[in-house]
Amino acid sequence: MSRVFNFNAGPAALPLPVLEQVREDLPEWHGCGMSVLEMSHRAEPFLSIARQAGIDLRKLLGVPDGYHVLFMQGGATAQFAAVPMNLLGEHRSADYVVTGTWSQKAAEECGKYGQARIAARPADGRFTRVPPHAEWKLDPDAAYLHYTPNETIAGVEFHWVPEGINVPLVADFSSSFLSHPVDVKRFGLIYAGAQKNAGAAGITIVVVRKELLDRKPLTQLPKVLDYREMAARDSMMNTPPTFAWYVSGLVFRWLLDQGGLEGIAAVNARKSGQLYDYIDSEAFYVNPVDKTARSRMNVVFTLADAARDADFLAGAKRAGLVGLKGHRSVGGMRASLYNAVPEEAVKTLVEYMREFARTHG
Amino acid sequence: MSRVFNFNAGPAALPLPVLEQVREDLPEWHGCGMSVLEMSHRAEPFLSIARQAGIDLRKLLGVPDGYHVLFMQGGATAQFAAVPMNLLGEHRSADYVVTGTWSQKAAEECGKYGQARIAARPADGRFTRVPPHAEWKLDPDAAYLHYTPNETIAGVEFHWVPEGINVPLVADFSSSFLSHPVDVKRFGLIYAGAQKNAGAAGITIVVVRKELLDRKPLTQLPKVLDYREMAARDSMMNTPPTFAWYVSGLVFRWLLDQGGLEGIAAVNARKSGQLYDYIDSEAFYVNPVDKTARSRMNVVFTLADAARDADFLAGAKRAGLVGLKGHRSVGGMRASLYNAVPEEAVKTLVEYMREFARTHG
Repeated sequence: MSRVFNFNAGPAALPLPVLEQVREDLPEWHGCGMSVLEMSHRAEPFLSIARQAGIDLRKLLGVPDGYHVLFMQGGATAQFAAVPMNLLGEHRSADYVVTGTWSQKAAEECGKYGQARIAARPADGRFTRVPPHAEWKLDPDAAYLHYTPNETIAGVEFHWVPEGINVPLVADFSSSFLSHPVDVKRFGLIYAGAQKNAGAAGITIVVVRKELLDRKPLTQLPKVLDYREMAARDSMMNTPPTFAWYVSGLVFRWLLDQGGLEGIAAVNARKSGQLYDYIDSEAFYVNPVDKTARSRMNVVFTLADAARDADFLAGAKRAGLVGLKGHRSVGGMRASLYNAVPEEAVKTLVEYMREFARTHG
Repeated sequence: MSRVFNFNAGPAALPLPVLEQVREDLPEWHGCGMSVLEMSHRAEPFLSIARQAGIDLRKLLGVPDGYHVLFMQGGATAQFAAVPMNLLGEHRSADYVVTGTWSQKAAEECGKYGQARIAARPADGRFTRVPPHAEWKLDPDAAYLHYTPNETIAGVEFHWVPEGINVPLVADFSSSFLSHPVDVKRFGLIYAGAQKNAGAAGITIVVVRKELLDRKPLTQLPKVLDYREMAARDSMMNTPPTFAWYVSGLVFRWLLDQGGLEGIAAVNARKSGQLYDYIDSEAFYVNPVDKTARSRMNVVFTLADAARDADFLAGAKRAGLVGLKGHRSVGGMRASLYNAVPEEAVKTLVEYMREFARTHG
């Protein structure tokens, strides 16, 4: 075994027991004579795999009966289109709170299908904080209010759920999905690409309040993005990404074994806390995010001297710490601390950072 | 080892060497410290995996320089929308040749975005033949002509490529992709879900002539379905289905090892030939498809007495022959003989059918 510590922003680390199970299930799943990759999506045993994943996700997240759970394709970017195409209905526009690159992209895509009103955006144009609710300019007739609880690139996270919003709340939870408990009934719709905390790239999870599907969708809505079609056919309107669905199911089971979302949230708080505490204690490293909005999933930081970045990354790689390069649009460093990243990884990273600062400071 | 003979229509059998390689690459790919499932799509080594898959596919299929090869999500059903949304341009309508359920669905989806003219459809309403080219009513101003070279449900296949068409030819090759050589330059666009002959469910391959992307797309085209966006970013406009891409790459490599498409086409001809010859020799079984249009991939047949269907399937399962139930919309039986189904499987199936006819005839 020479597994590295993987800080990738997504696709990202998976729990080792999940990978070992995938390996064990090849070339045959549970002695059924074929692998999951080869199963018909319309027959047992795949139906049992799909069903169990749905049951486990509902249990983990506490999804009430009045909600559909859908397994779709195309990632969050497909949802940027699907949400307005399905939910604008008779409304003229939808509200967007912009706190980073992803919420910005969501708003831009909505603009193709209707008006995307910007309800809030940091006044200074930098994505280092969450605008307080009091500053939001909300449209009472909006089709919905969209926000991104965790911005993967900026490392900015809401530590609260907007309250007293009189329109359905829609949240792109991609990079903080299943990282802590969430009160689903406060949301009209939640979506998440699985490749951060919930499995492999290629499957997207949507949790949507059933009554929202009474709205009239856009005429030019592709069938694969139609929530009604997907809900009516248990996410098997067409061939689903079966293997990715199975991997998500294994991740859900692993999370239940970790004490569910409360259990994993406690671990996640310790991991990000340890790294932020160290960064704050050392002038050589800077995290630019307001302390009330720091992401527990994606910790961004810069070195005092950006000319040292390449050395930092090369040394980290030699120490078995990979995936630390910041997003190409912002530079610097980023350590993504998703559920499957063990506490040992953070401890090793902090030790490396301390040594690097000592020898390069 | 107790691998069954898998006649699933898709997702379907994969070559055993591919499954063994996937297993060997877990939990680490080539000693790199992580699995393919955990790799960033923006960094080596995944970039090398993706690149090699593209190179191997171009080699296998003989894709000329003037074509993009795209790896997308959503299956053929997403392409039913993407094709008209991207290619209708200034044209009012597109032509569709309907020879089965899938070409019918493609035409219906097109109807959301423009007019889908039916250029040909069997006059008797049954999907048991391919209307001869001479009967087609073509619109010289059509945006493109769409057809489905192999209909998975009806078991109907074109054994020829339409010639002298003055508009771009668009083909849904999902269930016969990579099963025999194809002259790509005769097509404007080819698409295929990978889960039949080219890998796992969750990835869709599009081969498109570059100049077609000069057409103006529909304003309300979701970014994930925009060929221009995908082409400009090497199919990484957003996170691609990385693992499915890798599996397709392994399948492409396996096909090259089988002598490429000419090699596999010879095997496929023997497999379907053996099964059709037996069916034709035995009154107990009937294939309803015109002999000039029989699918080499999906062999449909009915028993003389449909009341025996359940017995037939149960006995087949005991003999290690699975996935033989016909599509729910048509009933009867279907043996899908994709590339990864070995000749031994067909031999065993014919032996079983002979014995079943003898004891139940």
